[in-house]
Amino acid sequence: MSDNKLVYAFGNGFEDGNAGMAELLGGKGANLAEMGRLGLPVPPGFTLTTEICQYFNAHDEQFPDRLEAEVTAAIQQVAKQQGKGFGDEANPLLVSVRSGSRASMPGMMDTVLNLGLNDVTVEALANATGDERFAWDSYRRFMQMYGDVVMGVDHDCFEEIIDDYKYGNALTEGAALEADDWKEICQSYRKMIQDEAGQAFPQDPYEQLWGAVRAVFKSWNNQRAITYRRLQGISDDWGTAVNIQAMVFGNLGETSATGVAFTRNPSNGEKEIYGEYLINAQGEDVVAGLRTPLYLSKQAREKAGFQDLSLEEEMPDTYAELLSVFETLEGHFRDMQDVEFTVEQGKLFILQTRNGKRTVKAGLKIAVDFQTEGLISSDEAVMRIDPVALEQLLHPTLDPRVQTEEITRGLPASPGAASGSVVFTPDLAEAKAAQGENVILLRMETSPEDIHGMYAAKAILTSRGGMTSHAAVVARGLGRPCVSGASAVRIDYEAKQATIGKMVLKEGDVITVDGTTGRVLLGEAPTIEAELTGDFAALMGWADEHREMAVRTNAETPSDAARARRFGAEGIGLCRTEHMFFDARRIFDMRQVILAADKQHRQAALDRLEPEQRKDFAEVFDIMAGLPVTIRLLDPPLHEFLPRAGDDISALAEAMDMSDEQLRARIEGLEESNPMLGHRGSRLAVTAPDVYEMQLRAIFGAMQDVTGTPVELEIMFPLVMDEAELVYLNQLADTVAAQIGEKTGQAPVYKLGSMIEVPRAALLADKLAAHSTFFSFGTNDLTQTTMGLSRDDAGSFLSRYTDKKLLAADPFVSLDEIGVGALVELATQKARSRRDDVKLGICGEHGGDPQTIDFCNRIGLDYVSCSPYRVPIARLAAAQAALRCKNTT
Amino acid sequence: MSDNKLVYAFGNGFEDGNAGMAELLGGKGANLAEMGRLGLPVPPGFTLTTEICQYFNAHDEQFPDRLEAEVTAAIQQVAKQQGKGFGDEANPLLVSVRSGSRASMPGMMDTVLNLGLNDVTVEALANATGDERFAWDSYRRFMQMYGDVVMGVDHDCFEEIIDDYKYGNALTEGAALEADDWKEICQSYRKMIQDEAGQAFPQDPYEQLWGAVRAVFKSWNNQRAITYRRLQGISDDWGTAVNIQAMVFGNLGETSATGVAFTRNPSNGEKEIYGEYLINAQGEDVVAGLRTPLYLSKQAREKAGFQDLSLEEEMPDTYAELLSVFETLEGHFRDMQDVEFTVEQGKLFILQTRNGKRTVKAGLKIAVDFQTEGLISSDEAVMRIDPVALEQLLHPTLDPRVQTEEITRGLPASPGAASGSVVFTPDLAEAKAAQGENVILLRMETSPEDIHGMYAAKAILTSRGGMTSHAAVVARGLGRPCVSGASAVRIDYEAKQATIGKMVLKEGDVITVDGTTGRVLLGEAPTIEAELTGDFAALMGWADEHREMAVRTNAETPSDAARARRFGAEGIGLCRTEHMFFDARRIFDMRQVILAADKQHRQAALDRLEPEQRKDFAEVFDIMAGLPVTIRLLDPPLHEFLPRAGDDISALAEAMDMSDEQLRARIEGLEESNPMLGHRGSRLAVTAPDVYEMQLRAIFGAMQDVTGTPVELEIMFPLVMDEAELVYLNQLADTVAAQIGEKTGQAPVYKLGSMIEVPRAALLADKLAAHSTFFSFGTNDLTQTTMGLSRDDAGSFLSRYTDKKLLAADPFVSLDEIGVGALVELATQKARSRRDDVKLGICGEHGGDPQTIDFCNRIGLDYVSCSPYRVPIARLAAAQAALRCKNTT
Repeated sequence: MSDNKLVYAFGNGFEDGNAGMAELLGGKGANLAEMGRLGLPVPPGFTLTTEICQYFNAHDEQFPDRLEAEVTAAIQQVAKQQGKGFGDEANPLLVSVRSGSRASMPGMMDTVLNLGLNDVTVEALANATGDERFAWDSYRRFMQMYGDVVMGVDHDCFEEIIDDYKYGNALTEGAALEADDWKEICQSYRKMIQDEAGQAFPQDPYEQLWGAVRAVFKSWNNQRAITYRRLQGISDDWGTAVNIQAMVFGNLGETSATGVAFTRNPSNGEKEIYGEYLINAQGEDVVAGLRTPLYLSKQAREKAGFQDLSLEEEMPDTYAELLSVFETLEGHFRDMQDVEFTVEQGKLFILQTRNGKRTVKAGLKIAVDFQTEGLISSDEAVMRIDPVALEQLLHPTLDPRVQTEEITRGLPASPGAASGSVVFTPDLAEAKAAQGENVILLRMETSPEDIHGMYAAKAILTSRGGMTSHAAVVARGLGRPCVSGASAVRIDYEAKQATIGKMVLKEGDVITVDGTTGRVLLGEAPTIEAELTGDFAALMGWADEHREMAVRTNAETPSDAARARRFGAEGIGLCRTEHMFFDARRIFDMRQVILAADKQHRQAALDRLEPEQRKDFAEVFDIMAGLPVTIRLLDPPLHEFLPRAGDDISALAEAMDMSDEQLRARIEGLEESNPMLGHRGSRLAVTAPDVYEMQLRAIFGAMQDVTGTPVELEIMFPLVMDEAELVYLNQLADTVAAQIGEKTGQAPVYKLGSMIEVPRAALLADKLAAHSTFFSFGTNDLTQTTMGLSRDDAGSFLSRYTDKKLLAADPFVSLDEIGVGALVELATQKARSRRDDVKLGICGEHGGDPQTIDFCNRIGLDYVSCSPYRVPIARLAAAQAALRCKNTT
Repeated sequence: MSDNKLVYAFGNGFEDGNAGMAELLGGKGANLAEMGRLGLPVPPGFTLTTEICQYFNAHDEQFPDRLEAEVTAAIQQVAKQQGKGFGDEANPLLVSVRSGSRASMPGMMDTVLNLGLNDVTVEALANATGDERFAWDSYRRFMQMYGDVVMGVDHDCFEEIIDDYKYGNALTEGAALEADDWKEICQSYRKMIQDEAGQAFPQDPYEQLWGAVRAVFKSWNNQRAITYRRLQGISDDWGTAVNIQAMVFGNLGETSATGVAFTRNPSNGEKEIYGEYLINAQGEDVVAGLRTPLYLSKQAREKAGFQDLSLEEEMPDTYAELLSVFETLEGHFRDMQDVEFTVEQGKLFILQTRNGKRTVKAGLKIAVDFQTEGLISSDEAVMRIDPVALEQLLHPTLDPRVQTEEITRGLPASPGAASGSVVFTPDLAEAKAAQGENVILLRMETSPEDIHGMYAAKAILTSRGGMTSHAAVVARGLGRPCVSGASAVRIDYEAKQATIGKMVLKEGDVITVDGTTGRVLLGEAPTIEAELTGDFAALMGWADEHREMAVRTNAETPSDAARARRFGAEGIGLCRTEHMFFDARRIFDMRQVILAADKQHRQAALDRLEPEQRKDFAEVFDIMAGLPVTIRLLDPPLHEFLPRAGDDISALAEAMDMSDEQLRARIEGLEESNPMLGHRGSRLAVTAPDVYEMQLRAIFGAMQDVTGTPVELEIMFPLVMDEAELVYLNQLADTVAAQIGEKTGQAPVYKLGSMIEVPRAALLADKLAAHSTFFSFGTNDLTQTTMGLSRDDAGSFLSRYTDKKLLAADPFVSLDEIGVGALVELATQKARSRRDDVKLGICGEHGGDPQTIDFCNRIGLDYVSCSPYRVPIARLAAAQAALRCKNTT
């Protein structure tokens, strides 16, 4: 317990605190003090600090000794300001007792209103307000709240008494009760409380006060608060503050009112007052929803075609004052505010202000408008937007105007939406796609063997697996919408159908998969393209000014490359050439390359593939004119290209002049125990250089085909593990380049570099840097190897690890900084020590993750590369990372 | 080219060089100089340095300018000593010209003898020796050698002339030719050489000399020398020296002789002169084998029952002088010597000495005897033995007295020999072994699914795969003899037979596999247990005095544990508990644990396994009384335990009350894409702690069952990757221990530690050390993860890497020091920084590899653990490592 004051006053110029003290005073208390300092009409009161709560929790629910004296002094001070006395029988001060922690925890903790009322002061309140019904209603509300919150009497016991009273007096359920009714009900409450709680309802206001304070502090540890904190990542150690504040009444007749308002439209960000109010009501009535709240502005009311008058029309002076308060608050807090207010007999009081929650779209507009209005700098605007949330604005979404039947939900594993007919095997997906049909691949889960089918499908739906399952990761990489872990879906591969409850989905049935939300819909649902506003462009412009890392994209198709460039990608960081083989005709040739019985047939198949690859590369080079393009040579284990289905095998066997059995034997011969660690990547070029040679010829040829500005060509070798190996690979590329140069008289211009995706490569980064002008950290594989953790198999146990906190987080979502990240950092230092101009980037899934981007910025990488839709996110995240660095240094 | 002299004299006290100059003078030249310094009878001569050869190779076969002058001076100096003249027509000096490189390359390069003879000097030689036949024979020998080596005339051309001469003169093939015969033949040679070589046979001795020198230097780069160097790992850059030496003649009549001798018996190490000689012969005659050489000592001759007299009997004085020379040489060179000598008319000359090659057994005896005789220290004795070679002495070997038919050969993948009947499937191996039959598992190659069958087999034979294939590694781990890569064996699984050429092996046929030599024999061959001599014990004793690291064993069976302890293991470093489940009955229970449909059946199966494990542990604890025993909890992916064969599945399904299909579906559900990186190791305990709990109860129970000295119990968690995970595992063990303690009143005493086998664990070693009293580096898996290299799949490409030198060596044989080793070293530093008494060891396959042991010693590990047969190797290697460290600091 520090020597800090325990009690901080606010209101009427007696402010001990300010907005910067949220840690000590909670958000509500700090902002009440701040508003007081601004001269805004805040009912006076004081805040019991969070340190008291921490003390309370650590000391068996005891308060610090000096608390009582400070509270007594503070409440007398408030009473004095109000010209009242706490417990004064003629002119009693009533107070509210509310929680208020550092982070907003709406509705999770307890509140007591109208405290200070007892059998005597209730009469004084009736006299003072001239409203006996109001006084007794307030008293019964207080007894009810206090009995429930402090004395532990079940809420129903109170409801029952009111119901019984109405029934006994033959009143309808909705009938308004008068002063005498409430008076009688108060009597019944008192008896019932004595019975239920085993003690009398306290008449001493101080006893009431301490009871309420204790209860609110205790509510920090009620079950729903604990759960909420766990979900929101709020520390259990923080504790709540308690705010004790003079009551103001929105229920003191027709000139009184209460309401909540946002200073801007939280839905679209428009600069307009947005909220609702009720005349003659307390705040809880607005929340309870028993009466329909009214609009604040005339414009909003008219737009909604609503009859009851707006606040602007009912109380124009108050409305004007409110607008002025909003302007003050926005100017001061420099953000859109969410405000609670009460009008007591014509006088406006502000009870709370906080930064308002908003949609992504609104957030974007507000940030940009605030900058334009001169309220915040462009730095601040950039820092205000959650990069991940941006993704919502980028993907095609389902048209909300069209109603479609939702049949199930899963995890939103890869964003975007697409429709097509259901298929259950990758091979059929490929076959149907080859005929121009849109298909959705439905699998229990996917494996590396399914990639050609995933590529062919418009979207992927799986019944198992999480956000980082194979299906999810590959779908994001391929830019296919994906819903994973839709556990209600039962798939029967043999029957070629799936059931969802009683519904049956057969092969060929059309469904729509919405990977942005995780929804699965029956039939074809129309989608709408995302529209990007000027606000988006403005914010991205500022982000680009601030960031230090370049942002590239992982793309290999012209459409992905074009989209990424539209989204601001500054080149391609990873062009996965294997994806170019998944097209039906090409995979047929690729399979012949792999399985050919002799060199001649193999070369023939390679010769068919070369012009295709060359065309692909030329298209991509055209789109990326003037920018760097990193092409990774063939990476995956060969068996990923091979057919599984009997028909496919037969067709291939026929083309290759083999028996099915012979072909099957060859396919089996390529099976591996651990393909991730097997014969793949540059290892393929060591055992059989001809495929890389073909790819290199296609790349260099494509460079010569392009007539516009050439790209900065970077050729990258995957899975490199040794210096001598890299030298060999470099020689391979240089030899092909020299041959092309000789043949065409035009020497290709290119740089060579390597992926760093096994720990050994990171450990030898200095040695490898002698032979590489750039490195790209392939953090997907580097995570798998560094942790000994197969992403494809982790589904069966990884969630247990994160649930039990045996791992801080899923390392396939955000880079594992202390393990994999340490290796990346070590490699960065080693590489730069050998070659200070080596270009370093990251091209794993993590390249689009803001937390990872922050890490990459901290360790000084030159660029990140991510999927096209993640490019804007990465641009923003990189800017935020740079700003964070600037602010901490 | 340095400013070094180019020519170094030796003999008669004119020694410019010494034994330490082998790099410059070659081994032969350096030792000739050294013998001269010792006053031994060396014919005088001089050595042309290896630097000349390097210059010659780098300068288009030109010699340095100053060479000619130095050679002329040197040869005149030799002539002067001999009282002769080079080319002197009355008293000519004859010389030999021989190669001699730093490393012995026997027979790979060229030699010219009797150089200096021509049509004139041959007559002088006849006069000087009084032996015309000798002179002309010497001349024709010289022409033949020179013509072949220097002038490139085919060897057959010379043979043809002799044959023709004999045929023309009606002589029998074996007839002795006289002076006139040789004279005529020399005429024919001269004509033939002119025809074949296109130039006359040179008469000028200096022209002869330079021709011979040039030819010998050139022979460094002949094809067989290049190949030999590649095989022996000798650098092409070293070059050879050339030795020019005055000729002495063992063929000058009955008082002349020539011979080779070892100073001790190279076969068994006995201290006895060992070798052979021929009277009236030149060295090449001994090699050519046309005459049967005679014994040197009378004892050896008599023992062999040989008639012709020994050197000891024929020339007792020479023999005595030879013994004295041997004593001088051994005393000086401090090792057993391999000596060439010639006796010219009663006078002994020593032409060469070098350290003699010997068998392992002899090497051991010689090293120990030398120490006992005070010739070398125990340090030196320890350093002299190749640790790997020791293994030959330890395993049971085939009885050489019994002849058995060898049917094929493969690689000696895991030492030892065993016989049994052939089976082709792991399941059948298990079934037959369960009935007490000895079986040999014959597979194309093995995979992790086969382990139960490998365990059940007495030996393993594969037709594919190398020394580090799955079969080889697992066999060594299990202590089963294994021959891998027996490529002549064609297996037809369906027909249940294998063919080797025309021979057919059927299921049930008995064969013998000799994993020490790679031989496969038909039928049952008797084996003999290794007998360990006192020499072995003495050497091991010295090794133990010198080494700093402890040596433990990887063992889980009582027989392995007992053998390892006999071999000097100081505890168990790795007890792989999963191996204890491979017994037929237990694996049946284990399968039920894994596949049980409900908790109750699972627990029942666990309850059956617990007492079995407890018994196993108690037996091992008994054997290892007083020593540390590290038990690793269950490690492999569960599917390794599961049945593949239809019969096994049916039997299991029946026991589990399931249909075959249900069981198959469950088994398939456990399949993984990359099991190495999947659901295994401690991850099993995170998802289902009950198996580890059972194992822990069995371990603690076994500790209580043992009545003798308890072991130091260490419990080890496999595949740990995070600090929180390790804390969880520690709690799991502590909880079980506490339960046992409570139940029995006896708190178990144990330490907890973790394997380091994924890079992340190494990177976080400081954090993990907070919760571990020891670490064991599992370098098999650490190599796989650090390099991204699956051992089971590397067969298809790893040899290409080592062949092309894209990797320095097979990283599964010797630890990859710069990659995996760097990680081990980093972890060692980090672990010690957190806990300076943390015990660090290595328990992968590498733990028995001397090179790796040297590395472990350098980075300061506390112990290595290896398979039982490797324990002596490790003790010796550890001693050598410690001595090497001492000598470099």
